[in-house]
Amino acid sequence: MAGPQDRERVRELLDSVRAAGREALTAPEGRIVAEAYGIAVPGEELAQDIDEAVACADRLGGPVVLKIVSPDVPHKTDAGGVVVGVRGAPEVRAAFRRIIGNVRAYAPDARIDGVQVQQLVPPGQEVIIGAVTDPTFGKVVAFGLGGVLVEVLKDITFRLAPVTADEAKSMLDSIRAAEILRGVRGTPPVDRWALAEQIRRVSQLVADFPEIAEVDLNPVIASPDGAVAADIRILLATGTVVPRRTYGREEILVSMRRLMEPRSVAVIGASDEQGKIGNAVMRNLVDGGFSGEIHPVNPRAGGILGRKAYKSVTDVPGEVDVAVFAIPARFVASALEEVGRKGVPNAVLIPSGFAETGEQALQDELVAVAERYGVRLLGPNIYGYYSTWQHLCATFCTPYDVRGGVALTSQSGGIGMAVLGFARSTRTGVSAIVGLGNKADIDEDDLLTWFGEDPNTRCVAMHLEDLKDGRAFVAAARRTVPKKPVVVLKAGRTSAGARAAGSHTGALAGDDAVYDDILRQAGVIRAPGLNEMLEYARSLPVLPTPKGDNVVVITGAGGSGVLLSDALVDNGLALMEIPPDLDAAFRAFIPPFGAAGNPVDITGGEPPSTYEATIRLGMEDPRVHALVLGYWHTVVTPPMVFAELTARVVGEFRERGIVKPVVASLAGDIEVEEACAYLFERGVVAYPYTTEKPVAALGAKYRWARAAGLLT
Amino acid sequence: MAGPQDRERVRELLDSVRAAGREALTAPEGRIVAEAYGIAVPGEELAQDIDEAVACADRLGGPVVLKIVSPDVPHKTDAGGVVVGVRGAPEVRAAFRRIIGNVRAYAPDARIDGVQVQQLVPPGQEVIIGAVTDPTFGKVVAFGLGGVLVEVLKDITFRLAPVTADEAKSMLDSIRAAEILRGVRGTPPVDRWALAEQIRRVSQLVADFPEIAEVDLNPVIASPDGAVAADIRILLATGTVVPRRTYGREEILVSMRRLMEPRSVAVIGASDEQGKIGNAVMRNLVDGGFSGEIHPVNPRAGGILGRKAYKSVTDVPGEVDVAVFAIPARFVASALEEVGRKGVPNAVLIPSGFAETGEQALQDELVAVAERYGVRLLGPNIYGYYSTWQHLCATFCTPYDVRGGVALTSQSGGIGMAVLGFARSTRTGVSAIVGLGNKADIDEDDLLTWFGEDPNTRCVAMHLEDLKDGRAFVAAARRTVPKKPVVVLKAGRTSAGARAAGSHTGALAGDDAVYDDILRQAGVIRAPGLNEMLEYARSLPVLPTPKGDNVVVITGAGGSGVLLSDALVDNGLALMEIPPDLDAAFRAFIPPFGAAGNPVDITGGEPPSTYEATIRLGMEDPRVHALVLGYWHTVVTPPMVFAELTARVVGEFRERGIVKPVVASLAGDIEVEEACAYLFERGVVAYPYTTEKPVAALGAKYRWARAAGLLT
Repeated sequence: MAGPQDRERVRELLDSVRAAGREALTAPEGRIVAEAYGIAVPGEELAQDIDEAVACADRLGGPVVLKIVSPDVPHKTDAGGVVVGVRGAPEVRAAFRRIIGNVRAYAPDARIDGVQVQQLVPPGQEVIIGAVTDPTFGKVVAFGLGGVLVEVLKDITFRLAPVTADEAKSMLDSIRAAEILRGVRGTPPVDRWALAEQIRRVSQLVADFPEIAEVDLNPVIASPDGAVAADIRILLATGTVVPRRTYGREEILVSMRRLMEPRSVAVIGASDEQGKIGNAVMRNLVDGGFSGEIHPVNPRAGGILGRKAYKSVTDVPGEVDVAVFAIPARFVASALEEVGRKGVPNAVLIPSGFAETGEQALQDELVAVAERYGVRLLGPNIYGYYSTWQHLCATFCTPYDVRGGVALTSQSGGIGMAVLGFARSTRTGVSAIVGLGNKADIDEDDLLTWFGEDPNTRCVAMHLEDLKDGRAFVAAARRTVPKKPVVVLKAGRTSAGARAAGSHTGALAGDDAVYDDILRQAGVIRAPGLNEMLEYARSLPVLPTPKGDNVVVITGAGGSGVLLSDALVDNGLALMEIPPDLDAAFRAFIPPFGAAGNPVDITGGEPPSTYEATIRLGMEDPRVHALVLGYWHTVVTPPMVFAELTARVVGEFRERGIVKPVVASLAGDIEVEEACAYLFERGVVAYPYTTEKPVAALGAKYRWARAAGLLT
Repeated sequence: MAGPQDRERVRELLDSVRAAGREALTAPEGRIVAEAYGIAVPGEELAQDIDEAVACADRLGGPVVLKIVSPDVPHKTDAGGVVVGVRGAPEVRAAFRRIIGNVRAYAPDARIDGVQVQQLVPPGQEVIIGAVTDPTFGKVVAFGLGGVLVEVLKDITFRLAPVTADEAKSMLDSIRAAEILRGVRGTPPVDRWALAEQIRRVSQLVADFPEIAEVDLNPVIASPDGAVAADIRILLATGTVVPRRTYGREEILVSMRRLMEPRSVAVIGASDEQGKIGNAVMRNLVDGGFSGEIHPVNPRAGGILGRKAYKSVTDVPGEVDVAVFAIPARFVASALEEVGRKGVPNAVLIPSGFAETGEQALQDELVAVAERYGVRLLGPNIYGYYSTWQHLCATFCTPYDVRGGVALTSQSGGIGMAVLGFARSTRTGVSAIVGLGNKADIDEDDLLTWFGEDPNTRCVAMHLEDLKDGRAFVAAARRTVPKKPVVVLKAGRTSAGARAAGSHTGALAGDDAVYDDILRQAGVIRAPGLNEMLEYARSLPVLPTPKGDNVVVITGAGGSGVLLSDALVDNGLALMEIPPDLDAAFRAFIPPFGAAGNPVDITGGEPPSTYEATIRLGMEDPRVHALVLGYWHTVVTPPMVFAELTARVVGEFRERGIVKPVVASLAGDIEVEEACAYLFERGVVAYPYTTEKPVAALGAKYRWARAAGLLT
């Protein structure tokens, strides 16, 4: 890779280009950068006259390409300034003359610096390697198949730059047409190492030089003998970016702990008057059962909900961990000053009327005050937050008390209300629900850092529309994912797309394509929609982690078995090939016409004992790693009988230390709804009237287990 | 197209090939077929010696390809039997010698018929055109991009053969990489007419000659100047297919009307004994409120549930429309004889123990009896059926009485139970629920033919695992779709794929790829899963048909607006560009910081009057064709207030004759569930905790409206 001298050479070159007020490097400049970073390009030399051209061609060997070099001829081909496949001195002489003649005729006043003599790149698979500066993630490297297909099919993949050699190699497998690189229909495979190395070097280049906005190697010709960039294009950024204030991991954890596990909460704008937000917040804190101190703050002081009120937060005795604001926007800044003076580390800003209504200046003022005092801000423009294990409902919404393993956050208040309603309706066990609103300060990476450490949180689910700092989020996700699943609903997937870009790679880097690849690389489970995010949030903490890839479907309804198999394949899961001994064991319990193999079709009309015996087999056999059950409602085995036996068997094995994910699809009359709720509460993820949802939950758990490195 | 003489020539050729016991046509034979059907192939001649080869090359003009012709050398290239790009007499002579020498060395005993001299096809875009014989749909024509990409990306599309010129043209747009054919990055567009014409001719060829099993034109070189097949490969079928018995449309309608609107039903195996299926069926008929005659049949006769029972169905007085069987499998055939003698047109066979348990012979016996008497069979191995507008519950499951617009069928009993439970849970208005089971006789196309005519049915939703006769289904779907939506859940989507095939096209024609394209062409809405099928079944009959493409989102929660926009794009719908006057009208009602444009973001915390005023605007403006509402639960506008006002406004406009689809996503606490039910009952498709489902329902309605030709 590039040594200090190489970097120095590039540094000088870029400085000179910027000094000249240019954004684009010329081809020879691009070549200097490529050589400094060991990016393979065809051998080439500049010839000032015919004899030099002949000598160059001779030194390079093999067929060459001749190209005009002129600052006044941007489109060389149009000007007749390119001749391809020139061999031997007579052809070089003729081609040189033709080029000069063509360009003189095309643009008589053009300055001509000479003719570039370039090795002809051998035939191979065209690919594109590039880099762009993403507004969310910064430097990002891209790889795709070249030619018209990358344009038409957008088959391209992205990673944060710089990438390691392994990450670069993973990019070769991340495009849909990956097979082509391995060789199809008799074409030999390309040199994967060489190709990955080109990607890595480009990623290192943009990481080393933040002023490089975009790089295009297009096309790169990949063959069994290597990968050579036929063309390199480098664009520099104009302007400078002001770095945002960041907090260290320990700082974040200290303030987050006081936010999520406070001992003392002050309510700025607490009120006795029903219908006021300051009243709702007070009531929820009290009714929710928060056991720490609750201090109402109100200029009129007196008592509120039977508690002593203070005129200012500075009057509150002892330390305060959180100040919840329930006052109009215009009063927030001055109250925040007092919160700062009091040394309160967290301000929860429920009020709206800031950036979301165009009052950016008012919001900037808050941020300035907060930074001065080191107060972290949640919001503004939020419903508040819940920390259920603390019985803390610091919100104007209704209390929520079903404690459990999932922490949910939402950027939008409406989505937050949907989270609350869904959780209540399904009795989802929650560790926290947090509104992020305008994200003037605290954002997803702060919360993720905390939830990653919080022992009560076993899964994190986040709705977001943007990330203020994509790299900080990825860093937090990478630390969290090995411990617990992180689910993200990224809204605004389809709105982006076209972006003004000076390069090919830039044009292909639609916001969502970049988000999708980079979140996946960070091990995040991306929910395709709101309902999926909520269902994953409900299921993942309940479902044990699978220890291997062998999934077995046991079904009473053959029809469900087929649909469950479809769903497994859709979710990237495979039905286990049942070993003969296990197959024989299943057969002992099912009717002779029941289908052997996988799905295990026990057939309709079987008694509870058949469900129980076959589920026991699946639980007992260590070669089976996950069970998918398809129940069919019959009079012989009613829904609650199935639910009871399944929960009992799964629970028994769990007590014996045999823990496997079990999901179930219940096909039947409405009694199956009660049966599903019963099963869910007992750790079996069960849904009525759908074969897709239970398998999607299992699929999400598998995706996480793979990302966390728990499956090989 | 091929005239009688051309067809006669092909007929004779194929007969001679079959007479010779061959399955594959030789290249010269393929050429004869191609010429008869006007399929463009490069000019070519067979040369027996060197001088003939030189003369041939001269006649053809331009560069040529030389290929060995030998019945003993199937892989010409491997044998060194192909030389490409030969120009002029000396090169032709050299190539001829080289080929003969190579082949002699490769296979000394090979018979050599000569050397084929073929025009070199000019450069262009490689595509593949083919035809296969699908087990479900019969002759099917295929089109895709050629080269490695069709293999790797499986970018190929199928249609029933023969296709019209328009259908053939539609295939060019049905591949993902369609843009390439229109010309990208400076390459000129291909001659679409010539390409479509090649497709049409191939499709006509296989339609004319059922014994042609597979055709491959691979590659076809498409260019601005035409489309030429560089290679043609034709495979013939072995064996013969016995045609199945079919019924005409009028026959089907007559017997189906008596099945679905019977005046008299006999229950074979009726019983007074609780727990018996014959008792459950009797009770459901009686309790369900069927107003026609119900005749129990039981060898012990006497009375059952207070009704006179008969020893045999032949003893029942008057005409009987339906005989419901509730007796063990082994007694069914003889009872069916009596049903036949009585002249009953329909037998509903609840019993299992036939093909599904391996008892194919027993089932074949039933079919033979039924065909002898002209009795149509539903089942066997089914739960029965419901015809709700007749108050008819001819099933052993519990009765269902919510009458409405959707007819549901299921091949599997388990899925049938899920249909029943879902319908009851959501109070889905149903016209019929029918179990199809083993489909010994009546299948989806019979039912679709009836439901297409049934005025009570406004939408048909079918779960199926296979189609006995894909063409009959497509014909029924094509007649039905212009009148009402047809939803299909095709199970077993992902199981198929690899199939033993002799051609390239055959290998690409995975079952599901063919199903998907052909169902889409028939205008069927394919549900991706069980839950989607059920939700479409519930929504589509409730939702009015849109009259245009302009969708407007009105939302209280900005966050919902973003997710609803995502969902619209996912469903192929576009947000209307709001005209300035309408934009101004919306702005008059929303706060200054509310977002203009589309979504119309009225912002959170708005009173009911803002929702009402903006919904009215959307309903009133004739340029708006559909509304998507995003509700955010607040104390200012509680869920039921929103539901009441929305239903009232939509109802008012409906009374004025202004009918538009309105769907809603409700984000809030659990009260939104009641609000959604209230809205759904009043024709507004509303869901809690999801932005995806309401838009998916609207998307399905749009897809149908387009397929039905109701939108331009």
